[in-house]
Amino acid sequence: MPETLILDGNRVATDIKESLSGAIQSLAKRGIVPCLATILVGDDPSSATYVRMKGNACKRLGIQSIRLDLPKDTSTGELILAIRKLNADPNVHGILLQHPVPHQIDERAAFEAISIEKDVDGVTTLGFAQNAFGFADFPSCTPAAIIAILDYYNISIEGKHAVVIGRSPILGKPVSIMLLNQNATVTTCHSKTTNLEDIVRLGDIVVAAVGKPRFVKGDWIKSGAIVLDAGYNEGNIGDVDYDGCLLKASAITPVPAGVGPVTIAALLKHTVAAAEKLAK
Amino acid sequence: MPETLILDGNRVATDIKESLSGAIQSLAKRGIVPCLATILVGDDPSSATYVRMKGNACKRLGIQSIRLDLPKDTSTGELILAIRKLNADPNVHGILLQHPVPHQIDERAAFEAISIEKDVDGVTTLGFAQNAFGFADFPSCTPAAIIAILDYYNISIEGKHAVVIGRSPILGKPVSIMLLNQNATVTTCHSKTTNLEDIVRLGDIVVAAVGKPRFVKGDWIKSGAIVLDAGYNEGNIGDVDYDGCLLKASAITPVPAGVGPVTIAALLKHTVAAAEKLAK
Repeated sequence: MPETLILDGNRVATDIKESLSGAIQSLAKRGIVPCLATILVGDDPSSATYVRMKGNACKRLGIQSIRLDLPKDTSTGELILAIRKLNADPNVHGILLQHPVPHQIDERAAFEAISIEKDVDGVTTLGFAQNAFGFADFPSCTPAAIIAILDYYNISIEGKHAVVIGRSPILGKPVSIMLLNQNATVTTCHSKTTNLEDIVRLGDIVVAAVGKPRFVKGDWIKSGAIVLDAGYNEGNIGDVDYDGCLLKASAITPVPAGVGPVTIAALLKHTVAAAEKLAK
Repeated sequence: MPETLILDGNRVATDIKESLSGAIQSLAKRGIVPCLATILVGDDPSSATYVRMKGNACKRLGIQSIRLDLPKDTSTGELILAIRKLNADPNVHGILLQHPVPHQIDERAAFEAISIEKDVDGVTTLGFAQNAFGFADFPSCTPAAIIAILDYYNISIEGKHAVVIGRSPILGKPVSIMLLNQNATVTTCHSKTTNLEDIVRLGDIVVAAVGKPRFVKGDWIKSGAIVLDAGYNEGNIGDVDYDGCLLKASAITPVPAGVGPVTIAALLKHTVAAAEKLAK
């Protein structure tokens, strides 16, 4: 049996980040520094870690980052007001509201407040639909990362059967549609799916985006399938039972160092593109 | 073997239309007549028939209809200008641009010109995404018709495996997402799908939206499946080989008198709802 290919997210992320240096230098000559504003509401430790990682990644690449920390009892109105200020700030090119927000906040309303020009994570309804129709400037970062990994490793998508486990607005749904637009036959599964294991077993490509640690077992995977783990649970554990799936898959993303770093690279790429677009 | 249930679109359409009479009367008391504007560009005979049928259906229900016929050499700019006039007209509540438009027109740009308040066929990107996230005022009419038929006949969707053949922005994609939102496991197929027959055979619910006459054969259908034919080809022929599928399906929509009349009823329903919303 041939060895399973480990899809190294750090390599893909480095490749994306290196591809940005020319654009960042061009912008610098015109006095423009791409700037990402991240908003963290409350003190969820995982979310704080993500936001910090995003800020550090910006810094290393010469992208400015602004971090807005709002108290956990922030209201929807207060959050929207903060977003509108960032919309109006000509020095801010991208806005990322860290998901999830505390329960009292209407997350959808907050996402919608982000102007489409600065929606670098594709969270607005308009951004979602532009992505669905194949003409988005900024598809959601994790779905974009999954496509980028397949692309980097020259894994063709066309005609393959992709099974996506999860249907969230920022992950399961957009990655399903992006795979569909790349000519995969796509099955989207979720908590109400009956015979989940049998459905997953149909997948030439399996995307786990379910938010449950080690949920996808090795014996659910068709021999030779490509497994992409978009999950990130406490303790650096993915949604895929890695050891079990490693035995069956022809290629697999690890956690950490799989989809995660590429998601951040996609965010930086979109921020630079937003700055370029505004500078035109 | 139990007899196959014929899903009678005329019955479902009548039911929907009857449910509108109260709202139409209430609006009339306030001097408001719901009004649908349909735009036909060029002289495609099928499109002209659809537009005429929609106009007639409006008339029978006491809904006003305005028909705008534009020459086949209309430019995108001219069409958008016409749409903007309808957007600005307070007496017009719904706008339907008949698909397809002649090749020189950028159909997507034209669809986008329709204001979201009057997008009664859910063709704008924003309308699509609101539908995808489950809070659209007006989902696309044919997908809405398919859900309405299943609903009328008390056919549960949750947990079923729905196979959709087609991925167009106004049919395959929105019906896939609507079935997903109703808790079906959804597989979307298209021209690049390999082993299409095997995939269709997985479907507890099969939606044909491919635009090819009698494309879906009886031996592709799992015994007992529910077959919904959203196709309408020249000579009143659907996308499903009706006679072949009738033998395998537990329920099936005929063509004509299946999805078609319910699509028109959905359009009327959305137009009345748009008028009600504006009157608030």
